[in-house]
Amino acid sequence: MRLAVIGPGLIGRSVTLAARRADPGTHVIEIDRGGALDAARGADLIVLATPVQVILEIISLQSDILRSSVTLDTGSTKRAVLSAARAAGLNHFVGGHPMAGAATAGPADARADLFYGRPFFLVPTGADAIALEFARKFVESLGARPVVMADDGREHDQVMAAVSHLPQVVAAALMAVCAEAAGSRLDWAGAGLRDMTRLAASPASTWQSILDSNADYVAPLLRAMAERLEAVADGLGDGHSVAKLLETANRARAIL
Amino acid sequence: MRLAVIGPGLIGRSVTLAARRADPGTHVIEIDRGGALDAARGADLIVLATPVQVILEIISLQSDILRSSVTLDTGSTKRAVLSAARAAGLNHFVGGHPMAGAATAGPADARADLFYGRPFFLVPTGADAIALEFARKFVESLGARPVVMADDGREHDQVMAAVSHLPQVVAAALMAVCAEAAGSRLDWAGAGLRDMTRLAASPASTWQSILDSNADYVAPLLRAMAERLEAVADGLGDGHSVAKLLETANRARAIL
Repeated sequence: MRLAVIGPGLIGRSVTLAARRADPGTHVIEIDRGGALDAARGADLIVLATPVQVILEIISLQSDILRSSVTLDTGSTKRAVLSAARAAGLNHFVGGHPMAGAATAGPADARADLFYGRPFFLVPTGADAIALEFARKFVESLGARPVVMADDGREHDQVMAAVSHLPQVVAAALMAVCAEAAGSRLDWAGAGLRDMTRLAASPASTWQSILDSNADYVAPLLRAMAERLEAVADGLGDGHSVAKLLETANRARAIL
Repeated sequence: MRLAVIGPGLIGRSVTLAARRADPGTHVIEIDRGGALDAARGADLIVLATPVQVILEIISLQSDILRSSVTLDTGSTKRAVLSAARAAGLNHFVGGHPMAGAATAGPADARADLFYGRPFFLVPTGADAIALEFARKFVESLGARPVVMADDGREHDQVMAAVSHLPQVVAAALMAVCAEAAGSRLDWAGAGLRDMTRLAASPASTWQSILDSNADYVAPLLRAMAERLEAVADGLGDGHSVAKLLETANRARAIL
């Protein structure tokens, strides 16, 4: 198989390593996100592993390169990507999102087993059945657990807004508020704050495009979160308001 | 030395273990938080290691037991405790707070080296110099790094509101909002959400009293956090609003 990986960061490089491990005969071409995409032309499979914004640019500006290959992207949101692929008339394009990796990691952290046992969402809206089957088998060969979703990325984006995008913004806002309030005493923080703000080290530009592409699902959750915090602020000192929230959270956390 | 530890949970039991390791001749009496405190009478040092609410009750209802001993508490907030101690006329009472341990841990997790190298705040407002010196030497003997604060607990409580109490409420609110929004898909969450909601497993009743006793410092931070989230919600999609917050957070996180 001839595989082209565009954007060899943590995810892209790990795709390369895992594909080679699955089939040592795989011929892989890695192309940096700024590189000339012509080398990908004619590949059996093109994997777009750049940030969402760059995936959208490639689809809209260089769709001719993708047209005759099965194309799988790994972007963090799916509706915008699938809508761009449909607008470009790409009918071998399968939307994908592996639940693996960490936002702060780079190609040096890539591993052949990064996807092992992890969900790999596949959203085949607009793709023909052969492309989906090809993508599904490829994802399985990486060791991932393919999860095919029949809508156009709505459920994926909605759930990611809750379990990934909201936590990202909350981590950043918490870090900013804490740093401002604690000043030079920030080093008094214990493991709790460190755990809670790990995501705040993620690169800003990547997240701006993820969040912008999922604004309609993320914004209401940010407002719901703000309302909860305001309600606790209003009730503090009454001896029970926080306990109720904490009990709800205790139960949910036990499920998680 | 005769040491009485009231409330042998993670902190209290670790005080026992560390004190015995420092001086094997130490005679320790451990008393459960509901137990008869009379056994503590006449100890050289009484350590109150119960939740804040119980510390306040002991000071106000059984101050006669504490009167002739140096008393050190380990409560998470200091102003309310010191104010109660002053009201009870205790002049060998030193407020304390070790930055060690985890809210979900119990006596089974106690360790002689729990305090080793960690800050142990001491707020001696209203205590005589001999009591402070005694408490400071004791805390050093546990392996902790005493940090004496000259105010009546204000700076301690203000910094803790930022680095400990705000993160606690945020973790609980995030867990509740995510669980509601993700429903049965909550298991799609990755390491990020898990890290951010670890604190949400903390016991509700303990935190209710911590937060109530620091409401005036915690509430404005909750509102500041809510405002930040609302501002992100308003700006989402504009291509730059989140990046600014994330860059601020990147810098603060690098310092942390």
